[in-house]
Amino acid sequence: MSVTAAKGFTAAGIAAGIKENGNPDLALVVNNGPRRAAAGVFTSNRVKAAPVLWSEQVLKGGAVTAVVLNSGGANACTGPQGFQDTHATAEKAAEVLDGHSAGEVAVASTGLIGVTLPMDKLLPGLEKAAAELSAHGGEKAAIAIKTTDTVHKTSVVTRGGWTVGGMAKGAGMLAPGLATMLVVLTTDADLDAPVLDRALREATRTTFDRVDSDGCMSTNDTVLLLASGASEVTPGYAEFAEAVRTVCDDLARQLIGDAEGASKDIRIEVVNAASEADAVEVGRSIARNNLLKCAIHGEDPNWGRVLSAIGTTGAAFEPDRLNVAINGVWVCRNGSFGEDRDLVDMRYREVRITADLAAGTAEPVVIWANDLTADYVHENSAYSS
Amino acid sequence: MSVTAAKGFTAAGIAAGIKENGNPDLALVVNNGPRRAAAGVFTSNRVKAAPVLWSEQVLKGGAVTAVVLNSGGANACTGPQGFQDTHATAEKAAEVLDGHSAGEVAVASTGLIGVTLPMDKLLPGLEKAAAELSAHGGEKAAIAIKTTDTVHKTSVVTRGGWTVGGMAKGAGMLAPGLATMLVVLTTDADLDAPVLDRALREATRTTFDRVDSDGCMSTNDTVLLLASGASEVTPGYAEFAEAVRTVCDDLARQLIGDAEGASKDIRIEVVNAASEADAVEVGRSIARNNLLKCAIHGEDPNWGRVLSAIGTTGAAFEPDRLNVAINGVWVCRNGSFGEDRDLVDMRYREVRITADLAAGTAEPVVIWANDLTADYVHENSAYSS
Repeated sequence: MSVTAAKGFTAAGIAAGIKENGNPDLALVVNNGPRRAAAGVFTSNRVKAAPVLWSEQVLKGGAVTAVVLNSGGANACTGPQGFQDTHATAEKAAEVLDGHSAGEVAVASTGLIGVTLPMDKLLPGLEKAAAELSAHGGEKAAIAIKTTDTVHKTSVVTRGGWTVGGMAKGAGMLAPGLATMLVVLTTDADLDAPVLDRALREATRTTFDRVDSDGCMSTNDTVLLLASGASEVTPGYAEFAEAVRTVCDDLARQLIGDAEGASKDIRIEVVNAASEADAVEVGRSIARNNLLKCAIHGEDPNWGRVLSAIGTTGAAFEPDRLNVAINGVWVCRNGSFGEDRDLVDMRYREVRITADLAAGTAEPVVIWANDLTADYVHENSAYSS
Repeated sequence: MSVTAAKGFTAAGIAAGIKENGNPDLALVVNNGPRRAAAGVFTSNRVKAAPVLWSEQVLKGGAVTAVVLNSGGANACTGPQGFQDTHATAEKAAEVLDGHSAGEVAVASTGLIGVTLPMDKLLPGLEKAAAELSAHGGEKAAIAIKTTDTVHKTSVVTRGGWTVGGMAKGAGMLAPGLATMLVVLTTDADLDAPVLDRALREATRTTFDRVDSDGCMSTNDTVLLLASGASEVTPGYAEFAEAVRTVCDDLARQLIGDAEGASKDIRIEVVNAASEADAVEVGRSIARNNLLKCAIHGEDPNWGRVLSAIGTTGAAFEPDRLNVAINGVWVCRNGSFGEDRDLVDMRYREVRITADLAAGTAEPVVIWANDLTADYVHENSAYSS
């Protein structure tokens, strides 16, 4: 159901020929209203792709009527030509969707950095996509934005008379600065842009922003939330924010589950930190430790690598008060060895690490990561991506 | 020649039975004077091994008469028992070396984190090592501190009447906070502890501290510099500091050349930064980017991954002024594609990346790193280390 689960939206996904293998590579999502409110969050990487620079400007207006997304090329580090190509894409979309303004067309791209897009294929592709727009097109749109994703990712939550739906892509270069990868969320709730913006920022802060598959921040991260108002229902803020968060959490979890080369999904929970910021710093340091990621791949409960990662942070803690559990077994107590590590069962894909800083009363923070595998190395060394 | 190249030093390396495979695992280095001046730098990881905590105290006195080093166990995260074991090791060394004080015995350990050392083997081993002390024992000492190192690492520089020699171990968990791995340097120059300290800190700051094989900071990093004064020569500071730096640089380069699973040594040079700190931050960010490390392994000049790594830093730069060369080919100019990437020849082990920030006039900074390979994953997932 994806982005067309909410009333008021149509979508399409087609093969425009941007990818040399002929797979679908161009998606179009249109908000048919009556409202066209929107919010967006983007990568905090200072090297930003042309479509990110463009869409940041579009979102300042608080209105989006259409989103064009392509796989097969990131249009990042492509200079003035890249920005002109994004502009031309928005202009073309406005043209094929009668009555729209290019200034309300967001653009998102994903693929190899440093090459320009084949505009001679992308622009005709937009005409084809517009002709195929459908209230059942959400699934095809989700498929068209895949790169190294092995499955397409969609999620839908329906509450009293209104719906939040969404699609996501992302399998590598998957570590958020603010958000990561490409995500489009839609809702038929009748809400204005400032409310959408608040709900989206709150949701991404604790979902996409706490996914760290490989420590590499993208130049193209984009998460958009579009509201059509077509349900004619205006939900209360808390209920709406919870629904957005649920969809974001579901999509973020799907991203980790399909990360390049991964054999394990690692749930890192940091408890009893002095502050939320400390907990996030510690969780992210653990998530990015290559030696630990290798050990998890080898089903080795190597808690010493967890401690060596915690030790590189500036978080408040005393080394001799740290505790670590792996899959519920407290293998490290008071900074030293605890329960027998042979008790840890690591056969399953999900591995749970709990780091107890014993330093305060902050709410627990969860960071999701993946293991480091020979398949990851192969996927990112055998060809350019 | 190693640590016994300088006059006034004896050393030994033996198999004490700490390693289950029977390989050499215990080294002893003794300064026979007449002077016993010393300096040391240690890991800035806040989770520090017991021998680091002990040796930091010893070095505050500015005098070291002997260094005990063991492989086969890091004695890190071992609680009060671990510290008692280090203390007992120093006491035993003082006992077997008549007339020495335990307070002048430095201890260094390397191996798996979180397990205590077999003291019933280590203490008798010290007696055996003391009996084998020799002015030709430097090579055996260097061999005894190996863990996953495939070769032992030594370096010697001789100037007018005096010498600086050294040995090093380190192949994984190889990213410095201040220094990394275990290193013992010796000199027969007649210098006091403050001069040694200054020369050692200056040397490590631009050598060991700019090696980043896998982004993982150790709990046991130790670099010691011992002076015997036996040459009866007091060199000028600049000449001595240059010799220390040369030995450190040589050993650091040997560490990168033998890093776990690596197939490439990556020399990352950051030029035209606004400050040295900016250059180091950018170089380290590039060095730690897993996607780039995979690309280099695949001999793919994927400069987009260099830019995405630079973009995550806080260094001064404008994205559209960045330039990147790989093995001398400027594949990225002004933040966009430059010379043809097919011109880049990456067949050899050494790969040179130049990142031009076009932001200032700071001196170039060089960071050494390795690629990320399936062999690295295997070596760090197939068994505990």
